[in-house]
Amino acid sequence: MTVVSTRDPALAAQMQDLLDGKAKPQGALGRIEDLALRLALIARGPEIKLDRALLLIFAGDHGLTESGVSSYPASVTQAMVSTLLAGRASANAFAAAVDAEVLVVDAGMAAALPPHPKLIDANVARSARNALREPAMTVDQAWLAVRRGVEIAEQRVGEGGADILLLGEMGIGNSASAALMMHRLLPAPLADCIGLGAGHDAEGLQRKQEVLAAAARRTLVNEPLDVLVEFGGFEIGMMAGAIMGAAEARKPVIADGFIGSAAALLAIRMEPTVADYLFFSHRSAERGHRQMLDGMGVEPLLDLSMRLGEGTGALLALPLLRAAARLLTDVASLEDVLAGRI
Amino acid sequence: MTVVSTRDPALAAQMQDLLDGKAKPQGALGRIEDLALRLALIARGPEIKLDRALLLIFAGDHGLTESGVSSYPASVTQAMVSTLLAGRASANAFAAAVDAEVLVVDAGMAAALPPHPKLIDANVARSARNALREPAMTVDQAWLAVRRGVEIAEQRVGEGGADILLLGEMGIGNSASAALMMHRLLPAPLADCIGLGAGHDAEGLQRKQEVLAAAARRTLVNEPLDVLVEFGGFEIGMMAGAIMGAAEARKPVIADGFIGSAAALLAIRMEPTVADYLFFSHRSAERGHRQMLDGMGVEPLLDLSMRLGEGTGALLALPLLRAAARLLTDVASLEDVLAGRI
Repeated sequence: MTVVSTRDPALAAQMQDLLDGKAKPQGALGRIEDLALRLALIARGPEIKLDRALLLIFAGDHGLTESGVSSYPASVTQAMVSTLLAGRASANAFAAAVDAEVLVVDAGMAAALPPHPKLIDANVARSARNALREPAMTVDQAWLAVRRGVEIAEQRVGEGGADILLLGEMGIGNSASAALMMHRLLPAPLADCIGLGAGHDAEGLQRKQEVLAAAARRTLVNEPLDVLVEFGGFEIGMMAGAIMGAAEARKPVIADGFIGSAAALLAIRMEPTVADYLFFSHRSAERGHRQMLDGMGVEPLLDLSMRLGEGTGALLALPLLRAAARLLTDVASLEDVLAGRI
Repeated sequence: MTVVSTRDPALAAQMQDLLDGKAKPQGALGRIEDLALRLALIARGPEIKLDRALLLIFAGDHGLTESGVSSYPASVTQAMVSTLLAGRASANAFAAAVDAEVLVVDAGMAAALPPHPKLIDANVARSARNALREPAMTVDQAWLAVRRGVEIAEQRVGEGGADILLLGEMGIGNSASAALMMHRLLPAPLADCIGLGAGHDAEGLQRKQEVLAAAARRTLVNEPLDVLVEFGGFEIGMMAGAIMGAAEARKPVIADGFIGSAAALLAIRMEPTVADYLFFSHRSAERGHRQMLDGMGVEPLLDLSMRLGEGTGALLALPLLRAAARLLTDVASLEDVLAGRI
């Protein structure tokens, strides 16, 4: 696993000159110009292709749900994965609107689903265990989850596959898992990491806080793999692996909301250079997300009070990257415009 | 000219119920759900079609440039319109990325361009006059600009035409014109309305401020048409007309940045119900834009530090509306999902 940094001051200067020479006031496209530069560094030049976009939605279940951390029953994971496979979930609607393919990955679902052309079976275990009482997974399972994420990205992204990878997730209870991981990896006070998830009343939120506080007291680990073992979800570990696999294939990756950002944080702690390939799509309405993004030193592209997951935020950011990708090649230089050479 | 309000409490309640019954936590798609509701009210039901998107870029020149309000020479309007027609400007790159058609409208360019399949000749006059010394246009010209905007929208939007209209502009000096219009129509202190436009140093900004202060002292008008006559640009008046025409055809309109918002403000002051059809794409980096949007009581969808114009912001907001448009029809109900009926 070697992820090469995209850092290249000479190329960066060259791309900045190219951008500054375009027929527009310098810097007038703001953050879209930053995207163009980062994408050019990833592509090693101005020709950036983002036509084929693939959203992988990693699904997993969480033993923590037994302890009441979620407002939905664990069975909803399976029901929503079936909905995604049928093309009838929010992510499918958004993917159709922005032209992206959607595949679902069974990373750690409690129930096995029948084979489906849109389903990748990478199941490591039938649900993570209850982190309130014991580690969510074994060390071997944690490595397996990460490795399978790497492999799936290697197979689906790059040469002959997708030009850009989008990450989404579905897993009842995974905002609880992500909160514990953020707490240890960022790090941040646990209370700052816990939000309403898919929806809680005051009582539900208090229960979630108590359960997660008790789970956190069980162990003091703060090394990335240990944190995944103790508090993880398989879908979070596998997403982190997919980020590494796409980065290894030198392709950009768009992270989604709170849980996707926890996976990004895990990937960055395991392999810091993956940050060069990561684009953070949106600031979720989930409580801890702002602090998690700030802690990683990143500013998301969108802020639309969304808190759904499934990669819905990543899908909405895709057109911004595609627009940026065309700037360096499609737009005439100011010099040519003023000389009447277009 | 009658623009019917989309207000319909019964339909709104029905659409909200439909949305709340979808397979997702209630409200979890945040502002995208608000868009879905507004679009459904415009479409009079859940079937919202936004496939055919048309960006009209209105071009005009400004006599104010003689007095040094802009950092670019007036000739750049023509050069950039040629670039847009050649498909080599930023708006073309973004339009290709999000699948929108681009047409340029000569609303008040100083120089006539040869006929071009992407150019609509609606020229009212060869440049607005210098508002520092005299009204920018006659009353007849102002009405003509607005009326031609209405007609162009009527011809191009709705039945057999575009499903959604995006507005952009190109006109050296038009941030000065828009600042004066904002000052009188919002209203707001003139100093709050003046920004760097396409780019100014401190000296350039001071000159712009002095020139606009002197222009403002020339007359006290604050009625919409009078403000257009005194301070307008033909492209701003014609954009306001196009908003009214699209609203009359009951189609959504996406406004762009500072100058586009001034046109939206003019349209709203002339015909308040057009607000029901308007979507504000982004908060521009231009100084007065935040206050102008706040004054209209609207929150834009994007905030990417852009300040280019040409409709670039409107183009980036289009995919958000398209995603919203699919929610009501494409996504399964939670009831069906939980009952295994998908």
